[in-house]
Amino acid sequence: MVHFEKKELKKKSQNISDWYTDVVLKAELADYAPVKGTMVIRPYGYAIWERVQEILNRMMKKEGVENAYFPLFIPYSLLNKEKEHIKGFSPELAIVTKGGGEELADPLVVRPTSETIMYEMYKKWIQSWRDLPILINQWNNVVRWEKRTYLFLRTLEFLWQEGHCAHATHEESREMVLKALDWYRQVYENYYAISVITGIKSAAERFAGAVSTFSIEALMPGGKALQGATSHDLGQNFSKAQDVTFQDKSGKMQHVWQNSWGFSTRTLGALILVHGDDNGLVLPPKIAPVQVVIVPVSQESSLIKLADELSERLEKINIRVKIDKRESISLGRKYNYWEVKGMPLRIELGKKEMEQRLLTLARRDTQEKSQIVVDEVEKKVPQILDEIQNNLFNKAKKFLEENTHITKDFAEFSQIMETSRGFIKAYWCEDAKCEAEIKAKTKATTRVMPLKSEESKGTCIHCGNSARHIWYFAQAY
Amino acid sequence: MVHFEKKELKKKSQNISDWYTDVVLKAELADYAPVKGTMVIRPYGYAIWERVQEILNRMMKKEGVENAYFPLFIPYSLLNKEKEHIKGFSPELAIVTKGGGEELADPLVVRPTSETIMYEMYKKWIQSWRDLPILINQWNNVVRWEKRTYLFLRTLEFLWQEGHCAHATHEESREMVLKALDWYRQVYENYYAISVITGIKSAAERFAGAVSTFSIEALMPGGKALQGATSHDLGQNFSKAQDVTFQDKSGKMQHVWQNSWGFSTRTLGALILVHGDDNGLVLPPKIAPVQVVIVPVSQESSLIKLADELSERLEKINIRVKIDKRESISLGRKYNYWEVKGMPLRIELGKKEMEQRLLTLARRDTQEKSQIVVDEVEKKVPQILDEIQNNLFNKAKKFLEENTHITKDFAEFSQIMETSRGFIKAYWCEDAKCEAEIKAKTKATTRVMPLKSEESKGTCIHCGNSARHIWYFAQAY
Repeated sequence: MVHFEKKELKKKSQNISDWYTDVVLKAELADYAPVKGTMVIRPYGYAIWERVQEILNRMMKKEGVENAYFPLFIPYSLLNKEKEHIKGFSPELAIVTKGGGEELADPLVVRPTSETIMYEMYKKWIQSWRDLPILINQWNNVVRWEKRTYLFLRTLEFLWQEGHCAHATHEESREMVLKALDWYRQVYENYYAISVITGIKSAAERFAGAVSTFSIEALMPGGKALQGATSHDLGQNFSKAQDVTFQDKSGKMQHVWQNSWGFSTRTLGALILVHGDDNGLVLPPKIAPVQVVIVPVSQESSLIKLADELSERLEKINIRVKIDKRESISLGRKYNYWEVKGMPLRIELGKKEMEQRLLTLARRDTQEKSQIVVDEVEKKVPQILDEIQNNLFNKAKKFLEENTHITKDFAEFSQIMETSRGFIKAYWCEDAKCEAEIKAKTKATTRVMPLKSEESKGTCIHCGNSARHIWYFAQAY
Repeated sequence: MVHFEKKELKKKSQNISDWYTDVVLKAELADYAPVKGTMVIRPYGYAIWERVQEILNRMMKKEGVENAYFPLFIPYSLLNKEKEHIKGFSPELAIVTKGGGEELADPLVVRPTSETIMYEMYKKWIQSWRDLPILINQWNNVVRWEKRTYLFLRTLEFLWQEGHCAHATHEESREMVLKALDWYRQVYENYYAISVITGIKSAAERFAGAVSTFSIEALMPGGKALQGATSHDLGQNFSKAQDVTFQDKSGKMQHVWQNSWGFSTRTLGALILVHGDDNGLVLPPKIAPVQVVIVPVSQESSLIKLADELSERLEKINIRVKIDKRESISLGRKYNYWEVKGMPLRIELGKKEMEQRLLTLARRDTQEKSQIVVDEVEKKVPQILDEIQNNLFNKAKKFLEENTHITKDFAEFSQIMETSRGFIKAYWCEDAKCEAEIKAKTKATTRVMPLKSEESKGTCIHCGNSARHIWYFAQAY
């Protein structure tokens, strides 16, 4: 544990980028590793990821998705089968050329994603309609050689889950695409306490090899958008390239319909950026590995006894709780330590409190302190945790709303992107060249066309041609 | 799902090796992947691994071990720091020489194990005795370039957990080594239902870079031993090579004491080998992803309703249960399917049973059928599952005992290793040259000297020199 004074923390209000790195390191979420661009996810950061695994596993398994594990190494020749796919990933590949002391005849790619290797197996496993659907997910590590890296948000290697399904019909596959997208929305909104936009990507922003890509878009402080998770309708692109077929009920051979969807440790970057403040990390209770820390002000046995009792009572009602009994650091440092770590709620146990059977509660989100009687702990603590969760979500929602602009004027569009940034909702003609010009002029890209967008008649914000839908634009993080 | 007739299954009693591969493939535990030596862990196999993760996580977390994630790539120069370590792993390395379209100046090793990369971080994180102990584990994939591979048991890439601790004293570190070893013994004995020997390895069989290695040894059908899991006392070997120090309470700088320990997907090979039979896989209930399958003999609604009711009642008492409602395959194939998959208990629901409120239970281990009344399901099912678990363990224990020989005569030793094999307990002088000669003559290696071996006086089974301990010998799987 590195000791530091509170005043040494960088301020979010001064420079978000410096603050972000400082918080990730000081809250002990992650650290730089020896190979440039890679990072270590430290226990506190990994515990958040374990919560995500728990939440998504529950959602996925309920719908029949099963976990499995496919190999890290993909023969280059296999990755090369779907032409758009290899074109998209080529610049980012890490390649193994030596193994067991020998030069390899066929170099191996360290997976950047697993479509090709998984579907090569699906080809073997699928014979008839009886074998469908295949609903498989894996939790693993992938490698994409990024030039400019950033803790959590962009690293050479990251962890994720990648779900890959094969269906008999496009409708069924499409349904799965939207189901996964909605799981991700739920993780963001109900656990991360981040309000998001869900929608479909433009052709230029689509996953390499997909028919269409859906994504979750979140707005970061500073007004840039972060692509939070994606779900891809792969149509029959891969099944045709790799010849994954099934015999339908009428005996006819058909290519399967596929989809893939992923949620990664990169999302932890959004979680940190959105809620953190000048005092460090702020974790929403529902995603926090520990929700309540109990800090006895001294090592007196009656205090320790009460702390143990409270911890037990809170655990019984499924609150994730920890007692900080460390003798080696001062009380002030302890408070500081848990504040930087974003602990949602701190219970302070002092002598005065003991005598009056009172507890002092300190909320991380509002920095407010209040007192409750010991007997009410089972009633009040969950209530306050809910309040914190809701408060954080509402703040994030308000930020998103206040920073979503609507305009029909490109000068105003440009002006916004030069100053406050945020999302802009505007008509766009859906022409890739026009999209590229908007980006060149304003650094803004199309983020998504929202789900359930109704077709209407409008004029493209940039070229003035006719447009049928309103799109979200923003600068990308 | 591949359909096959029961008679197409290879027989364990005829050729264990062919049978093993056949069961792994047909029970859909794993499959061969495109890159030679790699494999896919299919959902059914992975679900067993998820059980292992659940069990070990519970044990580890209770003792304060935290999960984290360290990078896949290790700079070659870093791996090279501990000389014994690099010597041991050199022939097995996979090396990345290209990244992002460019040749790398410093080639990267795909981790075969993570000592060096983790301790480079520990060096950064540890300043004083207050930062100790560090108890960190990670669940990940590692790569060792094996020439001869075998599903689960020996593959180019495998999954495992690797625990790595740093302590202020050797005593504390040694305690952790034995604690981890005992967790592994518990997984084998209480969940895998496999009786094992725990002990210390000879110098020749030690982990590259360790002061001493402890291991779990299990006996496979056919009489060969399998190293089931290992726990290493690293002493200060790595902390000196990588300069990982701490300031002790008196202010003096010292090198930390370290240990590492791992449990891998290779162990699933032992689980399959030990309990399986001519009809396929046999899973002990405590490790089985699903413990009970309910098979209604028809799609009649009253049967389906009862199946749902039973499933709910069993879930309520934490039994892992599944209903097989598939319409697309015949009843006979269903029974066969679950038999090959080693399902501990099958509940058959027929019309006759319905009328009499009776259930027919079919045990996988003994192939016995029995009937119980519906009302007793909560009482009887857990009882029978316990019986199955105990029966499998007792059978494995008996096999181990019956195949453990004691001898003082090298001719007899050689004879055993040529015929029935199994474990041999014999005095050994602890000289590496003598050990190598025994191996050359009999293919048997020292497995372990059991924990708590008392020192005594004996004569080495091979060279006749004086010996102080009895060691276990066996041919390695």
